[in-house]
Amino acid sequence: MIQLYTDSSPNGFKATIALEELGLPYTLRHVRIEEGDNRKPEFLRLNPHGRIPVLVDNDTGITLFESAAILLYLAEKTGQLLSSTPKVRWETLQWLVFHASSVGPLIGQRVYFEIFAAAKIPEAVAHYRRLTDEAFATLDNHLATHAYMAGDDYSIADIAHFGWTHIMRIIDFDFSTYRHLSTWHERVAARPAVQRGIALPALATGA
Amino acid sequence: MIQLYTDSSPNGFKATIALEELGLPYTLRHVRIEEGDNRKPEFLRLNPHGRIPVLVDNDTGITLFESAAILLYLAEKTGQLLSSTPKVRWETLQWLVFHASSVGPLIGQRVYFEIFAAAKIPEAVAHYRRLTDEAFATLDNHLATHAYMAGDDYSIADIAHFGWTHIMRIIDFDFSTYRHLSTWHERVAARPAVQRGIALPALATGA
Ligand SMILES: N[C@@H](CCC(=O)N[C@@H](CS)C(=O)NCC(=O)O)C(=O)O
Ligand SMILES: N[C@@H](CCC(=O)N[C@@H](CS)C(=O)NCC(=O)O)C(=O)O
Repeated sequence: MIQLYTDSSPNGFKATIALEELGLPYTLRHVRIEEGDNRKPEFLRLNPHGRIPVLVDNDTGITLFESAAILLYLAEKTGQLLSSTPKVRWETLQWLVFHASSVGPLIGQRVYFEIFAAAKIPEAVAHYRRLTDEAFATLDNHLATHAYMAGDDYSIADIAHFGWTHIMRIIDFDFSTYRHLSTWHERVAARPAVQRGIALPALATGA
Repeated sequence: MIQLYTDSSPNGFKATIALEELGLPYTLRHVRIEEGDNRKPEFLRLNPHGRIPVLVDNDTGITLFESAAILLYLAEKTGQLLSSTPKVRWETLQWLVFHASSVGPLIGQRVYFEIFAAAKIPEAVAHYRRLTDEAFATLDNHLATHAYMAGDDYSIADIAHFGWTHIMRIIDFDFSTYRHLSTWHERVAARPAVQRGIALPALATGA
């Protein structure tokens, strides 16, 4: 049986969406970041860096943090959401890592400086707007000729990007000028498993 | 034959080190970022996001950007630098993604605000010092009881982290207080293939 330690947040939703898509049985463990659950000793034994999501698979004895590693693990475990055709497999892994390394962390920093930072620093806000806009433009161009991030089918690369575009909608980060990215977002959002995944462990709010 | 498009920079060194470790024949294509080579149309056809490294494998017809995806590709192509034992394999992928998503981008932002930003913004500098220090502390604790990032052997997870610790040394980012991280760095730096990799396509300077 799989246990998922998570909270209602962009990286957490990637894992709940994937589990819902795959129909794997799992137990949800709600780690309340606001209450500091992710800094408690029992959680730090699972991820010494104190971040969610963390997946524990009792069938295999594997404990894993980092959402992109968890997505790849679930895809390989089930043979789903990741093509076995080499060209499509590597295209999928490329766009998965692109999200994990070149998009997600920058949106995270933009959200921090625009919304959470105590002092508003115009240069830092402008810096992250520029970098995230560049990433959105790359994705938008790519999606102008592709229905999904890689190959013809929905995959873990889509789930990774959707975790953040979903939160962007909730916190009113308008990305409607990126038309193809917006259309892709609606396409992914329409999936029943995605709707279930973003409600777990609880619906996110703009707070 | 493999072609590697790269420059002398943290993410580029990950790819040259891996290729040198594996002894695969490859051709080096020097993409001079300072001269804008990475924004030229012929390069954007390989990576629409305009970043190095990019690997083109003519044997398989695969073109790949994102250094962590390239490391995984080379490991799977050769069956080296990544254990096939599931527990070690996933531990390796976890620390590989940890670098790509939770360490590399933050060091990049710290370098930007401390060194390259036109205006010096103390809050931004402090923010990234705190976040990178947290990541170094996590790595240092981990390496207190492990010779390498994952399992008992050197792997692509080490190469990923070394790309950045190497540059940190060059630009005088002192991390000697992280004793285990420093010892690990020396251990990796002592490898002949690593020494060859960091000199390709040219030695990095602090500039
Ligand atoms: N790169 C990591 C990022 C994980 C992460 O930052 N998770 C956030 C929630 S989305 C967290 O746990 N934050 C708690 C904290 O920073 O204290 C991943 O993709 O899993
Ligand atoms: N997450 C990417 C980052 C790639 C990246 O930012 N590369 C830098 C050199 S280390 C680059 O090409 N910079 C050129 C630019 O930003 O214009 C990876 O790991 O490959």
